[in-house]
Amino acid sequence: MGIIVQKFGGTSVGSVEKIKNVAERVIEEKQRGHDVVVVVSAMGKTTDQLVVMANEISDYPNKREMDMLLATGEQVTISLLTMALLEKGYDAVSYTGWQAGMTTESVHGNARILKIDTERIERPLKEGKIVVVAGFQGITEDGEITTLGRGGSDTTAVALAAALKADKCDIYTDVTGVFTTDPRYIKGARKLQSISYDEMLELAQLGASVLHPRAVEYAKNYSVPLEVRSSTEREPGTIIEEEVSLEENLIVRGLAFEDQITRVTINGLSNSLTGLSDVFTTLAKHHINVDIIIQSFSDERTNLSFSIKSNDLKEAMEVLEKNKSLFPYEKIETESGLAKVSIVGSGMVSNPGVAAEMFAILSEEGIQIKMVSTSEIKVSTVIADSQMVHAVESLHETFGLSHSTVRA
Amino acid sequence: MGIIVQKFGGTSVGSVEKIKNVAERVIEEKQRGHDVVVVVSAMGKTTDQLVVMANEISDYPNKREMDMLLATGEQVTISLLTMALLEKGYDAVSYTGWQAGMTTESVHGNARILKIDTERIERPLKEGKIVVVAGFQGITEDGEITTLGRGGSDTTAVALAAALKADKCDIYTDVTGVFTTDPRYIKGARKLQSISYDEMLELAQLGASVLHPRAVEYAKNYSVPLEVRSSTEREPGTIIEEEVSLEENLIVRGLAFEDQITRVTINGLSNSLTGLSDVFTTLAKHHINVDIIIQSFSDERTNLSFSIKSNDLKEAMEVLEKNKSLFPYEKIETESGLAKVSIVGSGMVSNPGVAAEMFAILSEEGIQIKMVSTSEIKVSTVIADSQMVHAVESLHETFGLSHSTVRA
Repeated sequence: MGIIVQKFGGTSVGSVEKIKNVAERVIEEKQRGHDVVVVVSAMGKTTDQLVVMANEISDYPNKREMDMLLATGEQVTISLLTMALLEKGYDAVSYTGWQAGMTTESVHGNARILKIDTERIERPLKEGKIVVVAGFQGITEDGEITTLGRGGSDTTAVALAAALKADKCDIYTDVTGVFTTDPRYIKGARKLQSISYDEMLELAQLGASVLHPRAVEYAKNYSVPLEVRSSTEREPGTIIEEEVSLEENLIVRGLAFEDQITRVTINGLSNSLTGLSDVFTTLAKHHINVDIIIQSFSDERTNLSFSIKSNDLKEAMEVLEKNKSLFPYEKIETESGLAKVSIVGSGMVSNPGVAAEMFAILSEEGIQIKMVSTSEIKVSTVIADSQMVHAVESLHETFGLSHSTVRA
Repeated sequence: MGIIVQKFGGTSVGSVEKIKNVAERVIEEKQRGHDVVVVVSAMGKTTDQLVVMANEISDYPNKREMDMLLATGEQVTISLLTMALLEKGYDAVSYTGWQAGMTTESVHGNARILKIDTERIERPLKEGKIVVVAGFQGITEDGEITTLGRGGSDTTAVALAAALKADKCDIYTDVTGVFTTDPRYIKGARKLQSISYDEMLELAQLGASVLHPRAVEYAKNYSVPLEVRSSTEREPGTIIEEEVSLEENLIVRGLAFEDQITRVTINGLSNSLTGLSDVFTTLAKHHINVDIIIQSFSDERTNLSFSIKSNDLKEAMEVLEKNKSLFPYEKIETESGLAKVSIVGSGMVSNPGVAAEMFAILSEEGIQIKMVSTSEIKVSTVIADSQMVHAVESLHETFGLSHSTVRA
């Protein structure tokens, strides 16, 4: 039997009672004969409470100190879970991110893992201990505490599974698996038995909050089989792996949607060779994620539109205005109150009519498409957020996701 | 101007508002031109709350995991205080115990500092930054998080002051200085202007909770001048240094008292050469602190009495019974409900009648003395805890501590 990495999120460890339940799930896996590494998040609302305290002190708390503050959340969980495992008679030991050898880049608030020195974890595993690791956090080469940003504990779990050559990484969460679309909003949503990394990646990046995209990327790159499953129910979850069983090979496998989107249009950008790259390099340097990009040329000037998360708008505008000398432009227009709706499925590669079908469905429902972006297995549209749920329901029904072709 | 180390305890940093006030006190010192290093404890009741969670999981939480858990408390405070300093426009940076190079021995819950690598702190100090360090915690050579036990933040502060060759270490607390005895219980208690390390050490070890004895020891060994002062009032505190001004050289300078004492008597201990040492080595190995020791010989057997804290009694009895083969004895008697009352003063060295005077006062008040222990500058008596406050009041009055000879 090999190594299994289990990851439990904040809701699953939200109270002492829930931590004891998690200990049971961990022990079940251990009893099956596996070596078990557990990655946990901060308890329930802990992170939010820490952020509130920081905001009572500063509107813009220093990012290094914020990482110092937030890293305590997972440290509390690992010690309590380890105590619970010991109490139930299982040998266990906890490690913070820096103890577990999670070296990250030198960025606070959103660092990426550079390498993992697994020696510290492998020794106790060999001694039969359950190893409990703090998710979401790491350390720079200079010994500074960093955090991995939203969903970082997923990334910790998958990166550890890859580094330890684990058989599998189980992501325990408050849903029972990956659904064709978000069941909290769309009644007909159904659980998928399996899904490919690429499909999951598109779904994850498009706002399906089950699994963090960086974690899926990591899993794909290192071929780590993932399973998304419930921390309370015992039913099988959704397997994420390279090959997906044929009978499920629907053209459209899932639908993702997210609101709080803003379109930014830079009018009259100079047509210099480096203009475009300067804009997006500058935004990236300030960690503003740009999603859909549309460009149109005129004779001498370019109009450039892109979408960002609405709460990045203030910083994006400041950055663009401060760096106007680097990429001169005439003016900037913005439109908030937008949403993105996307269809995902690896079957699209060989079926060129899918995008056209999507546009036709939206048009029939009277929904105006403001931006479009496509990849081999995805079509995204930006529409008014007031029409988001209606758009998803129509697409979900028309592409056959509401019916029994997808096994529940 | 040199380096000043400031230490703020849990009450002083008990809320976000109080942390902002602490930032003001830190900035005042910085504005006087000093390099400032600040050591802080966990916020108010944080440690207690963490202990409650641990106890919901286990009656005897694993000590390594307990250190992992408790170390988060100070980490929260250092980040919030540093944010507050930055918000007020002062450059500052926080370090955990392990980042600050606090290497301790490999004992969980009560580790001693072995060495401090100050490089990480000196660099930002030279750049003009205020350095905020987590008290109470350290790291072993193997990278395990440890805590220093009760009052550990005092020790962190003094040890840092010694390692950095600081001009002074200011211990900010919720009292305005060191008093002749505990003013919460004894109305006539008066603040001392200064006191010697040895006197403070005796007072601290005897339960005057102002300052941790290990911190005073450290300060004495490295000649670090200490000042105990209020974190809210601006008045001068009590200076602790080698030489004490003559006008204050009372014979008895302070009175300490503590309840929750238990006497343990081992009857019929074999008179082997190693018997005594075996008993106390065994107790020490289990981190049970023994205070007063009294021994009486008969022809072949020894009776041995010693005092311990009442809440160590259960573990002490288990240890003594388990190791009976190592030091055979007839039986063990215990007496709880006791208190220790002590007089301290360096003037006693040249004044042999002080102990006798103390016994006479207690005897006049009808108080039975159950154990006695003396050092060059201290006389301790163990009495019934119901008589403790009355004994202290009588001694405080008779030794002249209630009057104006001690400057307030």
